[in-house]
Amino acid sequence: MTGWIAVVGLGPGAAALVTPEVTAALAEATDVVGYIPYVARVAPRRGLTLHPSDNRVELDRAALALDMAATGRRVVIVSSGDPGVFAMASALFEALEARPADHGANIRILPGITAMLAAAARAGAPLGHDFCAINLSDNLKPFAEVERRLRHAARGGFAMAFYNPRSKLRPHQFARVLEILREECEPARLVLFARAVSTPEERLCTVSLSDATPDMADMRTVVIVGNEATRQVGPWLYTPRSVPA
Amino acid sequence: MTGWIAVVGLGPGAAALVTPEVTAALAEATDVVGYIPYVARVAPRRGLTLHPSDNRVELDRAALALDMAATGRRVVIVSSGDPGVFAMASALFEALEARPADHGANIRILPGITAMLAAAARAGAPLGHDFCAINLSDNLKPFAEVERRLRHAARGGFAMAFYNPRSKLRPHQFARVLEILREECEPARLVLFARAVSTPEERLCTVSLSDATPDMADMRTVVIVGNEATRQVGPWLYTPRSVPA
Repeated sequence: MTGWIAVVGLGPGAAALVTPEVTAALAEATDVVGYIPYVARVAPRRGLTLHPSDNRVELDRAALALDMAATGRRVVIVSSGDPGVFAMASALFEALEARPADHGANIRILPGITAMLAAAARAGAPLGHDFCAINLSDNLKPFAEVERRLRHAARGGFAMAFYNPRSKLRPHQFARVLEILREECEPARLVLFARAVSTPEERLCTVSLSDATPDMADMRTVVIVGNEATRQVGPWLYTPRSVPA
Repeated sequence: MTGWIAVVGLGPGAAALVTPEVTAALAEATDVVGYIPYVARVAPRRGLTLHPSDNRVELDRAALALDMAATGRRVVIVSSGDPGVFAMASALFEALEARPADHGANIRILPGITAMLAAAARAGAPLGHDFCAINLSDNLKPFAEVERRLRHAARGGFAMAFYNPRSKLRPHQFARVLEILREECEPARLVLFARAVSTPEERLCTVSLSDATPDMADMRTVVIVGNEATRQVGPWLYTPRSVPA
């Protein structure tokens, strides 16, 4: 048996943002598993079986990958962005935890360009100083945790990147997030909405916190909130490296 | 004049982690500027002038790039990892801010695999839940800011990634950082020291916070502190996606 699993990041969308390491893993794979739109980004070829699955079945998908690797298959689990940031790597280890017999499985995690860094690059350098990344979805944690983290991030002076800001099933929470931010930050704080970066649907918009509205975000949007020093220069948004003493 | 500037991320070290977008920019460049060890990662070729410079001259380097682009040169500014994470992108915009005549310069920021995500991938998925990134250097901010951010990150339940944990000029601060963490977190909290990931000098080590010592970090180390749920499964370190209600 020489089966293996590679959990790979496909980056935000453009082929030019996929690392050669990930491209090589896909070229050697016998099977690709992942969420439907991510599997759709892998070119079909003879000898490669695609296993697209729906959202919210991450543990089933991980178990399928472990099952196939145990029979000698070479399995790539695809994530958008980076697999270690709100994606499939943690789900695989959760599945692995329940299967001690598989703890010696041949697993590699291959990093990718995560959405917040692709968005930051397109806008300038809003994450150029200390920052944090928060998944706003309450699928897997109580919303009270989201609120606690937002307040500590704001009071600690961090810039913030939000993943999964809004979905059809959770249309109201992002409005509450904006309310919390308005309690903690000044009205002129800059907020970047970056949608589908590096794809044909890319759209970037920077507004002040006082002008931000919930409908500016959807499932394909990463939101970046600057710190109090974040500012615009020419067409760019950036956060200075320094904090005056 | 068709000069341009691309601020690119070379990733943590391995060529297989450089995006095709960055490789293409380097192939079109006439000039490469950057910190000596990063410029050393660019293959010399006819028609390409390398401009290595020392650490701590980021604004001079950015000004040189703007000067050259204004005369029609195609300039790549190289950073390790991602240029937007404690690297040259913010420095370029700081330099640009002082030169209004250059606000229309043709600038692109090309993302790369940043050190914390390369380290996380090698170790498993310690950043699989909400996390923050903190530059521990006090070159450009008072150490009191570092302390404030550490405490808010810990109290907010974030995993943490530390850049520049320790240098020859600042040998004592990382000891203070560990003291602060011990005041805020339980002794069994897991800490990953990841040095020179993806290079021949790569070395990973996971210890409990109570066993962590300052000498485990140097200039080439990224330190990742898990959240309270971060744990080991087989040889892997990971943070679960969920927080129980």
